[in-house]
Amino acid sequence: MAKSRKIYLDYAASVSANPSSIHILGVKAKTKLQNARKEVATVLGARPEEIIFTSGGTESNNLAIQGVVLAWKGKNLPHIITTNIEHPSVLETFKMLKKRKLADISIVLVEKDGIVDPKKIKKEIKKNTVLVSVMYANNEIGTVQPIHEIAKEIRYYKKQSAKLKGFFRSSDSRVPIPARPFKNLSVFPLLHTDAVQAANYLNLNVEKLGVDLLSLSGSKIEKAGRVGVLYKKKSVPLAAIFCGGDQELGLRPGTENLSEILKFSHALKSVEITKGKEVKRLTRLQNYFLNKLKRSDIFNNAGMILNGDLKNRLPNNINITFPKIPSDLLVIELSAKGVMASSKSACKSSHSEGSYVIKAIHPESNIEIGGLRFSLGKETTKADIDYTVKILSKILLKLKKWYN
Amino acid sequence: MAKSRKIYLDYAASVSANPSSIHILGVKAKTKLQNARKEVATVLGARPEEIIFTSGGTESNNLAIQGVVLAWKGKNLPHIITTNIEHPSVLETFKMLKKRKLADISIVLVEKDGIVDPKKIKKEIKKNTVLVSVMYANNEIGTVQPIHEIAKEIRYYKKQSAKLKGFFRSSDSRVPIPARPFKNLSVFPLLHTDAVQAANYLNLNVEKLGVDLLSLSGSKIEKAGRVGVLYKKKSVPLAAIFCGGDQELGLRPGTENLSEILKFSHALKSVEITKGKEVKRLTRLQNYFLNKLKRSDIFNNAGMILNGDLKNRLPNNINITFPKIPSDLLVIELSAKGVMASSKSACKSSHSEGSYVIKAIHPESNIEIGGLRFSLGKETTKADIDYTVKILSKILLKLKKWYN
Repeated sequence: MAKSRKIYLDYAASVSANPSSIHILGVKAKTKLQNARKEVATVLGARPEEIIFTSGGTESNNLAIQGVVLAWKGKNLPHIITTNIEHPSVLETFKMLKKRKLADISIVLVEKDGIVDPKKIKKEIKKNTVLVSVMYANNEIGTVQPIHEIAKEIRYYKKQSAKLKGFFRSSDSRVPIPARPFKNLSVFPLLHTDAVQAANYLNLNVEKLGVDLLSLSGSKIEKAGRVGVLYKKKSVPLAAIFCGGDQELGLRPGTENLSEILKFSHALKSVEITKGKEVKRLTRLQNYFLNKLKRSDIFNNAGMILNGDLKNRLPNNINITFPKIPSDLLVIELSAKGVMASSKSACKSSHSEGSYVIKAIHPESNIEIGGLRFSLGKETTKADIDYTVKILSKILLKLKKWYN
Repeated sequence: MAKSRKIYLDYAASVSANPSSIHILGVKAKTKLQNARKEVATVLGARPEEIIFTSGGTESNNLAIQGVVLAWKGKNLPHIITTNIEHPSVLETFKMLKKRKLADISIVLVEKDGIVDPKKIKKEIKKNTVLVSVMYANNEIGTVQPIHEIAKEIRYYKKQSAKLKGFFRSSDSRVPIPARPFKNLSVFPLLHTDAVQAANYLNLNVEKLGVDLLSLSGSKIEKAGRVGVLYKKKSVPLAAIFCGGDQELGLRPGTENLSEILKFSHALKSVEITKGKEVKRLTRLQNYFLNKLKRSDIFNNAGMILNGDLKNRLPNNINITFPKIPSDLLVIELSAKGVMASSKSACKSSHSEGSYVIKAIHPESNIEIGGLRFSLGKETTKADIDYTVKILSKILLKLKKWYN
């Protein structure tokens, strides 16, 4: 019999090789998994052991937030801070933790341009604040949050409280001792960012961003496998949500979804290489689209509002509101003509209540109106935008009675 | 421009169509998702709205157990029952819930043949018992648990306590009122079964089994997508573990992994069609394998023990112990000769402590010895078994000093 004969009698572990099996096929699968982990770590400027593979962005966000709260060993109820335009997987997790009395929460309101003021975050930090969670870029209006500045405010807070502790620790209270060098700052408050929408276009280096936790999702990256990632700085205490096997440092039990993980790491690396070029291309298209909208009498007559800051913004996002026309209606009219747009987060699409993000930046608006989001991508061309603007103009003319 | 032109400007929802989007591509994706749900429901004899897609078996088990405990509204701490040979995603979840003081737990010991006695389960049921979780078939030793009999014991308990309540509710305590018809029995205790290992070979009809919750995993089914399923009877109160969007009735938020879900439903249907034939084929192979083992002097001299009941057993599982030879060593020796077997659950493979399942049925044994599992599948032939037995015989002869 040939030496290379392979007989697989480990179907109960997995129909294909399981990276946790100790036989040679398992070991090979594990090597592939570790290489994928290294690739992702390299893109993030992190260490391989800081990468946890999950099932997606929602799980990554839940694991980051619930995980920090559940791991907290302090006497007081932990306190966590976020903003009012986060993805439902963050906002609803905050509300659940409050409801179950597992955490105190603060929800900071963003400004009218859809950007949060880092000083307002800092103002909410208390002694028992364990986590600040602010998204890198918003899924509906594409605004990019000042994560680095928020990280600086948190670090400043940590230094201040370290100084304070150093002072009180002096045996002679009249002699202020010099502040200790800032090597042993508390790890709290931690900073988490939901980078799901940012992955294709923004810098993901966790050191530069200054974050302790960062979430990614394969479903928003071209050709990526359907898995998620949670970056967790080594020093961050985290509890698992699921219990089970030892996979992913025990923080995410369950047989690893190897084929999808390999696709993910490969796609993330590819995106990183073409990012600069693609951002330039999309920025040009975005400006082209915006100018067409701004210069059109039809859009202006319908009272068009451009939602969210136009500078600190993803290059692929345009979000507009016509104050008297429900965006849902526009999505359906556009769809009938072959243009696929969106009126709110797909994750909240079964609610009839409209967009809480648009409501957050236009508190005076009718919640049912919402915003009309166009999110461009790899395949989008100038001709697509010409066609889209033409079709939307026709729809607006048809709906003239709604806004005249 | 052609009418059929499709312009996708919804990249932020998902790089491919998101079933929760309201445009036409979203609606089409949703239809596919609903069809997959129907297919899975048909195999289980359930309703489509009772099927929840998850990321895998570990998540399904966690959602079933944590979900029932978290949804419990009673005044007393909920009580849950399981056995000592469950998969880590069940056992560790039980231990975590106890540690976090969210539930009281009872762990019933299985008999020496690896089968649990339904009467022993019933004995543990208390007024505050909300859930009994017993696996359909064991992942290490392949023993099939008497789920239907456990369901009967639970139903009997429910009837008894309904009668009791009816009796005490009588205004005249001397006159026992007739028991109410058993239409309004309490839903508690619920019965959950982890059917991950059973899917390929056993009847999955939830009505026949008498279960309220049932877990499946794509990773153990040939050609199935890497997703999981939790069947949840409509009347079962369940809380989500993740918070976020409205997908999967809000019980499992996160963009649906449509391509994998479609693969899963298709594979489950295929398995159902070929099940009878495949069970017969594997049973013949299993007997062939067993007879070869039993008749060999080499195996008998090494003190071979066949683990787990040989009748109530998956047709693809053989698990043996040589009391003086660590099974890990045998797996590695076999692997070097091209035979992939297993020594314990891959989910616990990073622990050096051996198999808790083998320890449970042979309490007197050395925990490090464990069991050597061969799990057959689609591609397994008689020639594979001949080769495996030959190789294993050689290894045993080489290791003679270990057991002589």
